[in-house]
Amino acid sequence: MMSDDRSEAPPLELFWISGSPYAWRVLLALALKGAPFVSRLLEVSKGELTNAEFLSVNPRGKVPALRDGELTMGESMAIVRYIDRCFPEPPLFGRNHVDEARINQKIDEIENYLVPETGWITRALFVDSVAGRKESLNARAERVRTELQNLESRVNTWLVGDATSAADISLYPIIAALLRAAGKPAATGLDLRLLPFAERYPRLAQWCSRIEALPGFDATYPPHWRE
Amino acid sequence: MMSDDRSEAPPLELFWISGSPYAWRVLLALALKGAPFVSRLLEVSKGELTNAEFLSVNPRGKVPALRDGELTMGESMAIVRYIDRCFPEPPLFGRNHVDEARINQKIDEIENYLVPETGWITRALFVDSVAGRKESLNARAERVRTELQNLESRVNTWLVGDATSAADISLYPIIAALLRAAGKPAATGLDLRLLPFAERYPRLAQWCSRIEALPGFDATYPPHWRE
Repeated sequence: MMSDDRSEAPPLELFWISGSPYAWRVLLALALKGAPFVSRLLEVSKGELTNAEFLSVNPRGKVPALRDGELTMGESMAIVRYIDRCFPEPPLFGRNHVDEARINQKIDEIENYLVPETGWITRALFVDSVAGRKESLNARAERVRTELQNLESRVNTWLVGDATSAADISLYPIIAALLRAAGKPAATGLDLRLLPFAERYPRLAQWCSRIEALPGFDATYPPHWRE
Repeated sequence: MMSDDRSEAPPLELFWISGSPYAWRVLLALALKGAPFVSRLLEVSKGELTNAEFLSVNPRGKVPALRDGELTMGESMAIVRYIDRCFPEPPLFGRNHVDEARINQKIDEIENYLVPETGWITRALFVDSVAGRKESLNARAERVRTELQNLESRVNTWLVGDATSAADISLYPIIAALLRAAGKPAATGLDLRLLPFAERYPRLAQWCSRIEALPGFDATYPPHWRE
């Protein structure tokens, strides 16, 4: 792998929206690296995900999206991997092949088994509606609880090894968005059994607190969640 | 990243079943590397995915699964990444950061937009049934065609850059399994519009032929598909 010196490169440009858990992953990666970037906070209500400039960065009209010179990207974990290459310290994918393998295994389990389920639940509660979908959302919540229990039984200080990694970064915003969705009034009609999170998943709740105490975390928190 | 010398390590042990597109990805990676491995071809009908030995390798009871000493893994692309670290040549993730980013972006698009849809269609036609699911399977097929058209319009010799990469490896078995499923008698009741593939997606069909001509490809072909 060639070393790509960034010292003379203009900063990365990150397109994001407030509250997107996938964009939040990238913000966390940049924060942990202390990496400079140009923040392009878009507003859905102003059509900023569908205008020509943004579609030239990500034809899917989704965030996060990254522009670095000629390179454009639009998938969160691919972007996190690129950031890790551009700013090697601290490494987000371990310091040896076995740690890297364990981190990649954990990320893919989160992506393949947890995210497809949480995505539906959070979208239904934030954007769409739970009407007519109660049964399928409850079935998804059951699979989410299985995955969370799995993580609960294995998490130590961090998800993998003894340092914050891309696995932690990939999971935290997913849980944060899920718990915020679970607190919405519409969720009372569902059988989610996720709250109170600290009682049901005490070790994961402590792990969340450790993420929230990381330097730079506050700047990544979704601005409209503070309102 | 430390260099991990494999010269004195016992070979990797790969658990797979014939016809699993996810396991096929790993077989292709090993073939391209010319890497030695112990092949553990499991048979579902003999309960070999659910016995204690296999569950100790992958508690999810799924293939592919890899064992390398103390390390066990069970997600196909995480395994492909590990194989790329163990056997660096030829590189499956490019020779510079930008190529690597484009390969990762392509893999994540395949994983996030194509595989969730093809997974349902192939499972319905191979394992479950299409009864009562026609409408949802046809809707999934439409999203598959959108993604295939997207790939068709961009593919050159390879999916990314000028060498076979992990992106090619991640896609080929997914398409091969999908086309085999689309040829099943049960598929005639669905509106898949995938066959004849070479007419509908000529550039992707040529790309498939290039994959099939790679050295070592024949040994990766699902044994029971030859019967």
